[in-house]
Amino acid sequence: MQETKKEPEKDTFKTEIKSIGVIHTPYKLGRFVPYQPLEREQGEARIKLFSRYVEALHSLDKFNYIYVLYYMEKNEGSWTEKVKPPWAKGHSVGLFASRSPNRPNRVGLSIVKLKKIEGDTLITSSMDVYDDTPLIDLKPYIKELDSKDDADYGWLEDVDGYEHLMLHMRGIPHEDT
Amino acid sequence: MQETKKEPEKDTFKTEIKSIGVIHTPYKLGRFVPYQPLEREQGEARIKLFSRYVEALHSLDKFNYIYVLYYMEKNEGSWTEKVKPPWAKGHSVGLFASRSPNRPNRVGLSIVKLKKIEGDTLITSSMDVYDDTPLIDLKPYIKELDSKDDADYGWLEDVDGYEHLMLHMRGIPHEDT
Repeated sequence: MQETKKEPEKDTFKTEIKSIGVIHTPYKLGRFVPYQPLEREQGEARIKLFSRYVEALHSLDKFNYIYVLYYMEKNEGSWTEKVKPPWAKGHSVGLFASRSPNRPNRVGLSIVKLKKIEGDTLITSSMDVYDDTPLIDLKPYIKELDSKDDADYGWLEDVDGYEHLMLHMRGIPHEDT
Repeated sequence: MQETKKEPEKDTFKTEIKSIGVIHTPYKLGRFVPYQPLEREQGEARIKLFSRYVEALHSLDKFNYIYVLYYMEKNEGSWTEKVKPPWAKGHSVGLFASRSPNRPNRVGLSIVKLKKIEGDTLITSSMDVYDDTPLIDLKPYIKELDSKDDADYGWLEDVDGYEHLMLHMRGIPHEDT
């Protein structure tokens, strides 16, 4: 790697973001939260928008999948440059190569299946967030743009027992041997 | 749709987010910016991280695609509940069913091809953002989790000449007839 310049970072930019609704899940603070959204699971999440944003949902129900952006306010750990993701068998990787919730900005991103919209509430496949998580944004997942056939698994392929790890990530029940 | 409750939205949550770097593109303010990241185009973007975040890039270069989250500070339009996306032939849809940059929170999301990392700088496929856009986060795009074979095109399929629209969205050169 080339040397990193240590000049003062005068371009630092701060701004305020606000919630536009609340995500409800069965995961109360202090209890287990799945590491990734588990579509195959029976559970669901409910995303309730504040009333002033409800009209902006028009036509979103035509999409099978959506992106949900939220603020992970309940994750109180501080971020570290390197992390050891769960199930990665001690592999240490940079924070930005992970999905750790403890990040410089606690903006979370999940892709979920949109089951239906009832008034101000979206019913989706289950989400890997705590109950009462503040919602920041919703965007359509558009197959042509967002589904990348030539995507890969990055460093995960270097982990011993990688296929087994995938079963965990996808939430598929299996025997741990 | 069921009636939306008009109770005061007491759960509104605000927080501050900060830039962790800067995105450089050829698109100066006031000039044309592509509507979506155009992988097939020759152009590229350069994402320069502030020095304190550089170590957190470790192993990110193993991924073919990454998510880039950024703050669209230069889009000064105010948001509206309904929008008419470009090329959608007058179709009016809810803001959240669109990728309009004018949103309640101006957090942008792009999936880009990661070409290489040189020290504090990521070189990626071209991005649909203005030069000097503040970077908020980087996350790995993991095939198993993020590439949805059963995703769809939502309301875009209702647009007359939908196949033609797809060519625009993918940035494929073609004759406009």
